[in-house]
Amino acid sequence: MDKQQAIIIKSILKHHSIINDEIDDHIAVEEPLEISITALRCVPPVTNKNISITMRTPCDDVALAIGFLYTEGIIRYDDTMTHSSETDNQITIELPDRADLDLSKIERHFYTSSSCGVCGKSSIEAIWTQCPIEMPAEALSVHSHIIKNIPTTLSQSQSVFQQTGGLHAAALYTIDGNIIDIKEDVGRHNALDKLIGAAILRKTLPLHNNLLLLSGRVSFELVQKSAMAGIRIITAIGAPSSLAIQLAEEFDITLIGFLGRERFNVYHGAERIIF
Amino acid sequence: MDKQQAIIIKSILKHHSIINDEIDDHIAVEEPLEISITALRCVPPVTNKNISITMRTPCDDVALAIGFLYTEGIIRYDDTMTHSSETDNQITIELPDRADLDLSKIERHFYTSSSCGVCGKSSIEAIWTQCPIEMPAEALSVHSHIIKNIPTTLSQSQSVFQQTGGLHAAALYTIDGNIIDIKEDVGRHNALDKLIGAAILRKTLPLHNNLLLLSGRVSFELVQKSAMAGIRIITAIGAPSSLAIQLAEEFDITLIGFLGRERFNVYHGAERIIF
Repeated sequence: MDKQQAIIIKSILKHHSIINDEIDDHIAVEEPLEISITALRCVPPVTNKNISITMRTPCDDVALAIGFLYTEGIIRYDDTMTHSSETDNQITIELPDRADLDLSKIERHFYTSSSCGVCGKSSIEAIWTQCPIEMPAEALSVHSHIIKNIPTTLSQSQSVFQQTGGLHAAALYTIDGNIIDIKEDVGRHNALDKLIGAAILRKTLPLHNNLLLLSGRVSFELVQKSAMAGIRIITAIGAPSSLAIQLAEEFDITLIGFLGRERFNVYHGAERIIF
Repeated sequence: MDKQQAIIIKSILKHHSIINDEIDDHIAVEEPLEISITALRCVPPVTNKNISITMRTPCDDVALAIGFLYTEGIIRYDDTMTHSSETDNQITIELPDRADLDLSKIERHFYTSSSCGVCGKSSIEAIWTQCPIEMPAEALSVHSHIIKNIPTTLSQSQSVFQQTGGLHAAALYTIDGNIIDIKEDVGRHNALDKLIGAAILRKTLPLHNNLLLLSGRVSFELVQKSAMAGIRIITAIGAPSSLAIQLAEEFDITLIGFLGRERFNVYHGAERIIF
């Protein structure tokens, strides 16, 4: 989709000290997206079943829908999406021949919210069981100077969107610090779903040897989605929550917060970092 | 509830330039809260019906549950909550004698997510219809220097939580800039639900003559919740989304973003500000 849909221009009043100016400002677009699935060869067949409405920035909608459905455990990585129909604020993902579409996961999603993910300690175990990607035994290491250089590359890549100041970003890097992809959204979970969905469309899961950068804080849900994609190193500009750290420990994901050009904090998995 | 539950201390690795330190850091707690309602005298009776699971910071749970149920349109302001039972991560709000508990609103909530609120243009009209509080005809005005002083008072009030860097805040002020209440949470929608729920418990709705401060960005959902509480002036440290501005226009709510000690942007309703 056209990235131009992600920003609108609006006349606002800008006040500084004692000066008022009427200026044209860039605003991040927030609009609903209704995500549905069709799986005709399922038993029973599923036709255009609404799964979720999410408030998102209109851009990369197909990647968002696929990333969301995958990280919620509703579709599998090896499902080849044969078709997706799309109108302005509605998208339907059509699934291929399969019989194990897990409708209970869909019901669960109705119950929980997209900002909260699944919840609680027993559910942490449930994620562990359901996570389809095993973390590999091979070691992974990254130099601390590469980690500290990531925020610079983010702000360069984010330049179009930085105008709004209203978008979260999720970016994928090679282990030597080269940017692979960046996705942005008013919702941080959407930005990560777009990033993971795009990797699924590129057929590059699992992301075992990549670095993930999150522009904001790290919630439980963002670590859960990262685990679903096989990510082993999460870096973030903001702070992690207690449950985000707990889940990173359970999955043995390196979790770095408060990342700046000179500094960062390591909440778990420091052995992967070469100082 | 004890604010000490909102923070845990954890040993982390702090890296700066070439120096690594093991330090004890303050982490914002994120835990699930299951919100249920009981309304025995409803027809049919509702017993311990699960409405939502939200990932929240354990603090002010009763206010959070009541603020959430009210801003979602499930309970009314004049419902006197006769009792609330509470365990660690579960709370049940008991409603008094009434017959008009709107179960369709509950179903809607299963469908949408707590991060997205209700969605789309037709839904904006639906909110307008459902919003139980009419904005008053009386004018309201605030001096620009009072607005610019608000971030200072926020950072003073937030001092305990600032240690974590991981909490959103929502704060309520008098029109002359005195702080009334501040609530914090890992989720920005939870912080606002706690603030509005506490005002409901104090029986001080509608909040027509108060200023609201939000520590982060302004989404559609936060404007919707503010409108449900009758708030007419929203100030925020971050940027608003396009739909947040649109909703502020529809409700004629003054919307201020990028608020700093010297500056702010006005996206709607500048006539309430005295420069």
